[in-house]
Amino acid sequence: MPSKKIPRATARRLPIYYRYLTVLLSANKQRVSSTELSEAVQVDSATIRRDFSYFGELGKRGYGYDVANLLKFFKGILHQDSLVSVALVGVGSLGSALLNYNFHQDTNLRISAAFDTKPEFANTVKSGIPIYPAEEMTTQLKEQQIDVVILAVPGTKAQKVTDQLVEAGVKGILNFTPVRLSVPKDVQVQNIDLTNELQTLIYFIKNYSEYNK
Amino acid sequence: MPSKKIPRATARRLPIYYRYLTVLLSANKQRVSSTELSEAVQVDSATIRRDFSYFGELGKRGYGYDVANLLKFFKGILHQDSLVSVALVGVGSLGSALLNYNFHQDTNLRISAAFDTKPEFANTVKSGIPIYPAEEMTTQLKEQQIDVVILAVPGTKAQKVTDQLVEAGVKGILNFTPVRLSVPKDVQVQNIDLTNELQTLIYFIKNYSEYNK
Repeated sequence: MPSKKIPRATARRLPIYYRYLTVLLSANKQRVSSTELSEAVQVDSATIRRDFSYFGELGKRGYGYDVANLLKFFKGILHQDSLVSVALVGVGSLGSALLNYNFHQDTNLRISAAFDTKPEFANTVKSGIPIYPAEEMTTQLKEQQIDVVILAVPGTKAQKVTDQLVEAGVKGILNFTPVRLSVPKDVQVQNIDLTNELQTLIYFIKNYSEYNK
Repeated sequence: MPSKKIPRATARRLPIYYRYLTVLLSANKQRVSSTELSEAVQVDSATIRRDFSYFGELGKRGYGYDVANLLKFFKGILHQDSLVSVALVGVGSLGSALLNYNFHQDTNLRISAAFDTKPEFANTVKSGIPIYPAEEMTTQLKEQQIDVVILAVPGTKAQKVTDQLVEAGVKGILNFTPVRLSVPKDVQVQNIDLTNELQTLIYFIKNYSEYNK
């Protein structure tokens, strides 16, 4: 457990490091230099060293990083040793695509339940995942001890559904709606707003290309 | 145009500010305090002030921000005054959902072309958007002067398609594949990797809740 609060940007890179290390391990590679790591994950090596420095000494100067050790470490901080069940709320066109989505096989993530208000979806199975009627959401989340949810409902329903999720004990929401959700402080929200992402990308194209040449 | 390079995290928040300001303007609100802004966009006010400080003095102490002025400013830096055409590459289940996706109506973004290798999709129209065969990608991108692309092809094809996009003059890629793409320095990539997002969210749930209480 890290002793100080690490920056969000660093936290977002941890899964990337983790994934690459699993690839190295399955290729029987025993150590990796920070340059190799940098090229593979497309993050500059100064940033990698700063990220790693939050967790103490992970490598040796001139030797690089021991793959198995580093992997074990990241596995621990990313809680990859136990299976995490995730629920999908809202089985529209984006929701259906998410049910189909191939989460990396080297992770411990599973979508194990989905919820939707459409009566024709109730108690059917889609991409191998059971869809429950919305009325059963609270009960099922509690019963299956699911505290992470992917929210893909229409924006107009987002806050109301979020309130129900919080009530049901959910601690993390991956928010695909364009709404900025209001939640208690102990609930984490990760926003994926495609309009935002595209606008940010366009901003970078217009304003950053000059710097990077 | 900002004179210094602003942090990525700040750039990612600009569209959020912009969107909220358009809402205020259509509600005929003339000014907004940094506290109101903070509550509406769920970003703490110190961060908002720091973000704004990159662009010089935007507000007056004790008065807050003038909505119309601020909106005009953000419209400029986000290049909202001209229409931006975007192409979708890969019309699988995620790609189809993206064609259907309702980009905020107050933006200047339009998906105006899609590409796929499946012969049965060639020269059809889906959600109002024409789908072209993959062989026509380079020609169409150049002809339609599209330099922003949403990439939703299978991971195994991601780098190969990216090389073609770069060759066709694309300057920005919103990358939905799990692959870390290799691109020249003048091409911007924004990664949306759902496994990463979920893992980061879980990391926050396990490690941050304590701090935030």
